[in-house]
Amino acid sequence: MKKLINDPFDFVEEMLEGFCLAHDDLICRVGRRAVARIDAPIKGKVGIVVGGGSGHLPLYTAFVGKGGADAAPVGNIFASPPAKPILEATLAANGGEGVIYVYGNYAGDVLNFDRAAAIAQDEHGVRVETVLITDDVPSAPKTEIHNRRGIAGAFLICKCAGAKAETKADFDAVLAAIRKANDNTRTMGVGLTACTVPANGRPTFSLPEDEMEIGLGVHGEPGVRRTKIIPADKVVDEIVETLLADLDFGDSDVAVLVNGLGATPYEELYVMYRRVKQILDAKRIRIRLKFVGEYATSLEMAGASISLMRLDAELHDLLVAPMHTPMIRLF
Amino acid sequence: MKKLINDPFDFVEEMLEGFCLAHDDLICRVGRRAVARIDAPIKGKVGIVVGGGSGHLPLYTAFVGKGGADAAPVGNIFASPPAKPILEATLAANGGEGVIYVYGNYAGDVLNFDRAAAIAQDEHGVRVETVLITDDVPSAPKTEIHNRRGIAGAFLICKCAGAKAETKADFDAVLAAIRKANDNTRTMGVGLTACTVPANGRPTFSLPEDEMEIGLGVHGEPGVRRTKIIPADKVVDEIVETLLADLDFGDSDVAVLVNGLGATPYEELYVMYRRVKQILDAKRIRIRLKFVGEYATSLEMAGASISLMRLDAELHDLLVAPMHTPMIRLF
Repeated sequence: MKKLINDPFDFVEEMLEGFCLAHDDLICRVGRRAVARIDAPIKGKVGIVVGGGSGHLPLYTAFVGKGGADAAPVGNIFASPPAKPILEATLAANGGEGVIYVYGNYAGDVLNFDRAAAIAQDEHGVRVETVLITDDVPSAPKTEIHNRRGIAGAFLICKCAGAKAETKADFDAVLAAIRKANDNTRTMGVGLTACTVPANGRPTFSLPEDEMEIGLGVHGEPGVRRTKIIPADKVVDEIVETLLADLDFGDSDVAVLVNGLGATPYEELYVMYRRVKQILDAKRIRIRLKFVGEYATSLEMAGASISLMRLDAELHDLLVAPMHTPMIRLF
Repeated sequence: MKKLINDPFDFVEEMLEGFCLAHDDLICRVGRRAVARIDAPIKGKVGIVVGGGSGHLPLYTAFVGKGGADAAPVGNIFASPPAKPILEATLAANGGEGVIYVYGNYAGDVLNFDRAAAIAQDEHGVRVETVLITDDVPSAPKTEIHNRRGIAGAFLICKCAGAKAETKADFDAVLAAIRKANDNTRTMGVGLTACTVPANGRPTFSLPEDEMEIGLGVHGEPGVRRTKIIPADKVVDEIVETLLADLDFGDSDVAVLVNGLGATPYEELYVMYRRVKQILDAKRIRIRLKFVGEYATSLEMAGASISLMRLDAELHDLLVAPMHTPMIRLF
């Protein structure tokens, strides 16, 4: 296992320690396994809590900050945080207007976030609602859209959530904006290699040297199909075609996110963005905003994903609002 | 070769096309193989030209922008740009106050940048001076410090160069500030895996499954020693000790850069930063600024480097000046 780590069982603890030290101007630690923006809770603002397993930086821990989330519990690598840090994050985020959870639709996360929500409401009187991120198109058919998982589109959705809450809109308006953001976002990925969870010591799955997997989930969940390595343009064609078939992008304005999973060079992401632009131009779908980089990784997995968000005026304005978090600074 | 590319010989062209499309609000293409900030040339401002081989994003192409460089020629992967795009970048950057080249000390780059400088001066009357980046401590002994190569510390040095030029200081003052930035910066890396240049189709070097190489150059140039995998803390100890032995950091203020080479997860970089902080705290060296992330990569190489810049008031102020370039937004 080739990694720059110490004891694998200390990995998350040491990562979090370094993360908080490196970004002490923006965030602080809450309890053992959560972070919050230094100015949280903010009176009169709906609190946004995001989170999930570690190993996906910047998602979710580095989404906490100005124009982003108020707090995030931090799980072990690829494992949900327990209810305790979720509750601690909730209380840290609550400025009296209630808290909205925004996280990827994974069974373990749902279980623990729901438990924390119940305690927050019953014992602390904090109103909590949840928006599950379900942008991963191949993870379930359109008829079971609520069963889809959340992947890199989470960045766009959390960006909107943070920006809307920052306007001090009321609880229902923030909740509606986040739901709209999720409803209008579609993502599909491609995996080239697995990654290794330190405490396991072996790759999460195996993929032959000459194959890639289209539609792969971020923890190695099975995709749509395995294929011999094909050119990047063909991969992008297949992904974008799938996304466009799943939601009517008509002649909409869209935001594009080309996201690297960890080991894929930025140079390759730009090759992919070039092709996305060619396709959308030909279909008269207007790219209003574009993000190319690493927003949701899976440790050292090689691969990428493409997300499209269909924009209306509100979502556009939320995406271009300022955001300043540990690893992301926009507008 | 597992990559998201098309024809390997189109890789740089397609990457550059995507890069310019994705960042058309900040930079534009100049000729076939250079980019410039959209508002260049800027009258009354010394022009800064950075550049080198591709495959290292954000370095150097994504250092072009506000508070960064004015223009950058773009070479093939790990290969110097020819004199022609360097000259085109020079003319695009020249606002009448001359141009300073800032790039890593590699023989091919020196040859081509020097040739372009001669043409710019002789045929276009543009004053050109050069600062070679030589931060890579293990690449030559202290007695031959001018022979050292340039690696990730280039980010800190180019940041200072861009910020100083932005103040519209005169040519000699800008030149002096960049030299000072280089003289006060030290870097050392560690490599865990090689990477594959698409047009070659095979890894740049080989490193056994259970070994790492300390002091490795960014193109796979030999390091100080190969060792069985050791804990991250021991790697950091060895690197920081080497850096501190090479320059008297006394009880200085410093900027720290923990840089990932491509495939190393951000989580591991934070584990390393944590250890850097422990060491410097114990020595009463004050970390005033810290950068953790990918600033100079080598395609999908796994590994990292640590840079320290000894700060005086001027270098500190230059590092905290605003920078807004395609992949970097600071302050």
